[in-house]
Amino acid sequence: MHASVTSPELLARLSSALDHDGVITDADVLPGYERDMMPLAPYGTPLAVVLPRTTAQVQAVVRACAEHGVPIVPRGAGSGLSGAANAIAGCVVLVTTRMNAILEIDPDNRLAVVEPGVINLDLRAAVEQHGLFYPPDPSSYDWCTLGGNLSTNAGGLCCVKYGVTTDSVLGLRVVLADGEVLDTGRRTVKGVAGYDLTKLFVGSEGTLGVITRATLALRPLPQAPGTLVAAFDTAAAAGDAVTRVVRAGIIPSLMEIMDATAIAAVEAHLKTELGAGRGSAALLICQSDTGGDAAVGELSAIERICQDAGATLAHTTFDLAEGALLLTARRAVLTALETYGAWLTDDVCVPRTKITDLIAGCERISAEVGLRVAVVGHAGDGNMHPTIVYDPASADEFARAERAFADILDLGLRLGGTITGEHGVGKIKREWLAREIGPVGLRVHRAVKAALDPGNLFNPGSMFDLG
Amino acid sequence: MHASVTSPELLARLSSALDHDGVITDADVLPGYERDMMPLAPYGTPLAVVLPRTTAQVQAVVRACAEHGVPIVPRGAGSGLSGAANAIAGCVVLVTTRMNAILEIDPDNRLAVVEPGVINLDLRAAVEQHGLFYPPDPSSYDWCTLGGNLSTNAGGLCCVKYGVTTDSVLGLRVVLADGEVLDTGRRTVKGVAGYDLTKLFVGSEGTLGVITRATLALRPLPQAPGTLVAAFDTAAAAGDAVTRVVRAGIIPSLMEIMDATAIAAVEAHLKTELGAGRGSAALLICQSDTGGDAAVGELSAIERICQDAGATLAHTTFDLAEGALLLTARRAVLTALETYGAWLTDDVCVPRTKITDLIAGCERISAEVGLRVAVVGHAGDGNMHPTIVYDPASADEFARAERAFADILDLGLRLGGTITGEHGVGKIKREWLAREIGPVGLRVHRAVKAALDPGNLFNPGSMFDLG
Repeated sequence: MHASVTSPELLARLSSALDHDGVITDADVLPGYERDMMPLAPYGTPLAVVLPRTTAQVQAVVRACAEHGVPIVPRGAGSGLSGAANAIAGCVVLVTTRMNAILEIDPDNRLAVVEPGVINLDLRAAVEQHGLFYPPDPSSYDWCTLGGNLSTNAGGLCCVKYGVTTDSVLGLRVVLADGEVLDTGRRTVKGVAGYDLTKLFVGSEGTLGVITRATLALRPLPQAPGTLVAAFDTAAAAGDAVTRVVRAGIIPSLMEIMDATAIAAVEAHLKTELGAGRGSAALLICQSDTGGDAAVGELSAIERICQDAGATLAHTTFDLAEGALLLTARRAVLTALETYGAWLTDDVCVPRTKITDLIAGCERISAEVGLRVAVVGHAGDGNMHPTIVYDPASADEFARAERAFADILDLGLRLGGTITGEHGVGKIKREWLAREIGPVGLRVHRAVKAALDPGNLFNPGSMFDLG
Repeated sequence: MHASVTSPELLARLSSALDHDGVITDADVLPGYERDMMPLAPYGTPLAVVLPRTTAQVQAVVRACAEHGVPIVPRGAGSGLSGAANAIAGCVVLVTTRMNAILEIDPDNRLAVVEPGVINLDLRAAVEQHGLFYPPDPSSYDWCTLGGNLSTNAGGLCCVKYGVTTDSVLGLRVVLADGEVLDTGRRTVKGVAGYDLTKLFVGSEGTLGVITRATLALRPLPQAPGTLVAAFDTAAAAGDAVTRVVRAGIIPSLMEIMDATAIAAVEAHLKTELGAGRGSAALLICQSDTGGDAAVGELSAIERICQDAGATLAHTTFDLAEGALLLTARRAVLTALETYGAWLTDDVCVPRTKITDLIAGCERISAEVGLRVAVVGHAGDGNMHPTIVYDPASADEFARAERAFADILDLGLRLGGTITGEHGVGKIKREWLAREIGPVGLRVHRAVKAALDPGNLFNPGSMFDLG
């Protein structure tokens, strides 16, 4: 990069392209765009932050940066947990939050067309007015943007029944590295014309282009959920219950697990007992959104399974407020852990039969590093978020937290899992990605990147390096 | 290609790699591997047909052909409808039917690991023994292979509820153009480590590599289905019923439509009245596999909607034999049309609100070309198969059939649809793909192809040309 030479000219060009109000270079403001929510990820100070309002403005930014050899880091709200949106020194951070229009909701074809800056919750609320449902619900759903969700292939609590973001995407508009606009996919439910470029861009973490529009598939709004909570004396018993539910062919709409550390933190934070009694080693929270007798049937079958697996308590409610309270407790885990220190959350996904092994392994790792590790996660699909708590003022604790973070990834791989179920690789798991996909996989990644972004303009060095 | 020079050496090498029983060069046998089920597609005589048994043998074939500059056309059972597996003159056809082992069924993690030559129905039957379900069910499910299903991203009758093949794939093993083995994806339900190469290879129609293994996601076996049949005086009324069902938020497990021409052909062929009475303009067949009260509720809601939309008959049955008979009638359409001549089936997918327009357009095209066009299709997802009947002995009728085929694609695109919902592009819709995806889309396709197959070894000229 030759920022000292190119920056005045580049900045003038960006400013002109963005109507003189879409470029930030104020040194007091830039730090707000330097990093996401992942404390481990490196970041630098950008040359500028740009906030385009249209696809044409994104094209202008891309062309200007390409000509000046200045890299672009695309960014949504910054809720990410892998540093994928973290700035590189001297880059331009391209923030899509001003492109926040819901362009269309088509109830008869059950789809929506959105800009990337729309907040997940805003789309959910808008389509609900039409009796429709947009499933992906990452924990940050009340402030994360759909553009970020698309770029990371975000998941959430819905995935056990409704899949991840890629399962709800019909098509994309993407600005490519040469500034051209690519439209992928279609508005129909099915379609196999050509390579599935839509799903190639979803989850590509801003390394292949800038998504400026998406056509999303919607589902009918599910029924009001019934909720079950079950407490267990051992994590193994809870894991056993999960396996039995899968084996019984039941697909709940939500199936979350919290270990003893997570339960204790939430109980202290919310000053409640979660109906589980002190000393529980694990809690399962399940929902059914099928409604009527079907929901009663599903939840009573799960309740029986939990009891058979040794639950000390299993309670089902169709009271919406009570159900919502349990979900609030589940969603409060990370905040609750802040009582003890800073948190560093991991994101392994293991075969569902291996949840018990993962929790046991995390207990061992916690003892080895001498730090709290709370396990919370999406038990229904094996996607677990062991969360390490450390004192941010202690370099030693931070180093031990980093070690635990790595040990958990290693454990996840050894259990036949993946290093990331929904958060992504970003700037913290590059070496782990290389390990998971191997040298041939890495070579193919590099070839695809070089084919679509030969100048390495977009998010260089994130996800993997060019070797 | 320099087949005259290279072929003896190449054939010797292939023969040695395939244990001397896996290479066919017999001029009487080769024609059986020259083409699939699509009469419009060009084909040539291959240099040889190879039938490897292992990934290592596929690697040996790929390396030998790459060194000799002889293209490879991968092929399954040959049930395709786009000519994607049709031989190119002088190529090696790589047939995967001998790699037909179901390597693993893991009921606790609801997945199966298979070789590409496994017949779709064989996997369905095998997993059913474990109470599990592999949804994709293309019409040829009793003889097509999973490798072909993966390469075309096949659909079927299940898609309205369970999606297409890509929605059931967790990971692949692929032999690349340089003979290296790439493993994509994972065994976990979720995972976002790196680009979604799995879904890039699914539907790539043999142009990027040879799939030699797949890890497939399974679902719990659904309940025995209830079946509804409804007859309408006009296709518009049936289309209206489909729109209303979608709008009501009902997701049947199957929702098929047949127009007057299809109904008449099947009634004549099966010597039955389909319970619809003579002269019906359209028939809807729906199923619910949710079981119990939920199925009764779904089907009675659909029955009410059909009546509101003007159905002349609407009949629901939970008798499995009666339901199966209706499905048999639906599946018999193409065979029934053979009474009148040869058939040429199209595969457009339109927004579900446009089904009526598509049927009306097909009636107009039928009148224009003076040939029978029967419309049958997956109404629940808008994927329609207008099927043109012509006299194979008449060059004039064949030319008119070709014209109707193209007019239907044009109509599908003008209705906001796609040129292929599930059959693929192959060697018959290359120009149409270019039109649907535009010059930028075509350029990206070429870049991806060049990145993964720089020597244009795999299925050259299929799907798109290199420009």
